[in-house]
Amino acid sequence: MAAHVFVDDLSAGRPALAEDDVHHLSRVLRLRPGEAVSVSDGRGGWQLCKWAGGKALEPVGELVRYDRPSPLLTVGFALTKGDHPQWAVQKLTEAGADRVVVVMSARCVARWPAAKHGHQLERLRQVARQAAMQSRRPWLPVVEGPVPFSEFAGPEQGGLEQGGPEQGGAVTGWSAVALAVPGGAPLTLSTPTVLVGPEGGWTEEELAAVPRHFGLGPHVLRAETAAVAAGVLLAALRAGLVAEIG
Amino acid sequence: MAAHVFVDDLSAGRPALAEDDVHHLSRVLRLRPGEAVSVSDGRGGWQLCKWAGGKALEPVGELVRYDRPSPLLTVGFALTKGDHPQWAVQKLTEAGADRVVVVMSARCVARWPAAKHGHQLERLRQVARQAAMQSRRPWLPVVEGPVPFSEFAGPEQGGLEQGGPEQGGAVTGWSAVALAVPGGAPLTLSTPTVLVGPEGGWTEEELAAVPRHFGLGPHVLRAETAAVAAGVLLAALRAGLVAEIG
Repeated sequence: MAAHVFVDDLSAGRPALAEDDVHHLSRVLRLRPGEAVSVSDGRGGWQLCKWAGGKALEPVGELVRYDRPSPLLTVGFALTKGDHPQWAVQKLTEAGADRVVVVMSARCVARWPAAKHGHQLERLRQVARQAAMQSRRPWLPVVEGPVPFSEFAGPEQGGLEQGGPEQGGAVTGWSAVALAVPGGAPLTLSTPTVLVGPEGGWTEEELAAVPRHFGLGPHVLRAETAAVAAGVLLAALRAGLVAEIG
Repeated sequence: MAAHVFVDDLSAGRPALAEDDVHHLSRVLRLRPGEAVSVSDGRGGWQLCKWAGGKALEPVGELVRYDRPSPLLTVGFALTKGDHPQWAVQKLTEAGADRVVVVMSARCVARWPAAKHGHQLERLRQVARQAAMQSRRPWLPVVEGPVPFSEFAGPEQGGLEQGGPEQGGAVTGWSAVALAVPGGAPLTLSTPTVLVGPEGGWTEEELAAVPRHFGLGPHVLRAETAAVAAGVLLAALRAGLVAEIG
């Protein structure tokens, strides 16, 4: 199976590798010039290329356009400590989430210093890009944050919604959010935007602000495990591997 | 919510904390003597106690016996590098797996040196115990390995099977195994013992040896992510959060 990489642009017919990916192909994967590489623009475009050495890629197949899967899946999770957000983003990308959002809720213990928001977010996007290479995705997930709870879960906010063919499948709006709550109802694709709280749970105000709740079963999960479990279950529902209850 | 700990024995009415757990309660959770602790023997027994300081626990409620959930879920995964087995065990314990097995298949890249098998396995069991404390489980998962593929997946081997009431719900036998294979059939509780392979996949011989295959959808998952996803889906099927396709 050919290595999968992302490039900025495929449409001009002259795709070029990023510096880091040159290193990855040559040093980590030990590819040689002339070998096949699977190349995506992260926005649904995909083309088989031949690595011509350095940054140069030579298209050898047709440019294929993949639609975004439907419905689009958004998983938000309350910011957790240490490297937990990184692995949540990695696993959610592998699982097939279309958007991953770091959310600040009232009981979040962790904080990103304001001066480091950009750096932290960039780091998470790098993790998502690497995971998407590993998972051979033609669409990169959107990674955002930190977003206040009220913004993510507010009545006019929420997840990605996909435009119809007339909008080229672009993101056009927002859908309602469901909050993870112990003993909540089973997940459903009719609420494909979910939000998992911090270890300390939600405040009364947060619970009251978002009427849709879902549960993840009888076990107590760490916050980041709950986020990944929700992503795995939504993706499995979307792929038809399991069916909704009811 | 009271802290959850495991003790060797609850039936004698004098449960005692392990040294590490004394440290955990006093230093990490900053409990004070007199506070309530949720205590389990890891074999279905559970009792609310009061921490009396040091290793001493004073039962304050009835000793409750929880049945093992049914069917018992076993997830085997091919040994992977670095700390991947540790986090797979942690997440599978949280998700609700009853047995987690490290398996050596033909294309495993990682190896445990023979002299360190005991140490590595003990480390994984510690991870499972900590995760089960976090998840407040009354049953500790069984953690085993490294087990050769032929032993785990052989025709007369496989997962845990639960005895009927006459056996007190004890483990009495083995059930057939399903192998994770790209494009395989959806998971089902009729094969609650699954095995996830290494990045390099299965050999022809391994595939031929185990006729039951299952798939995890359109995305390419890292080996350890696939193991956790399989555990999450089986546990969700068992909990009635999702339904089998059929």
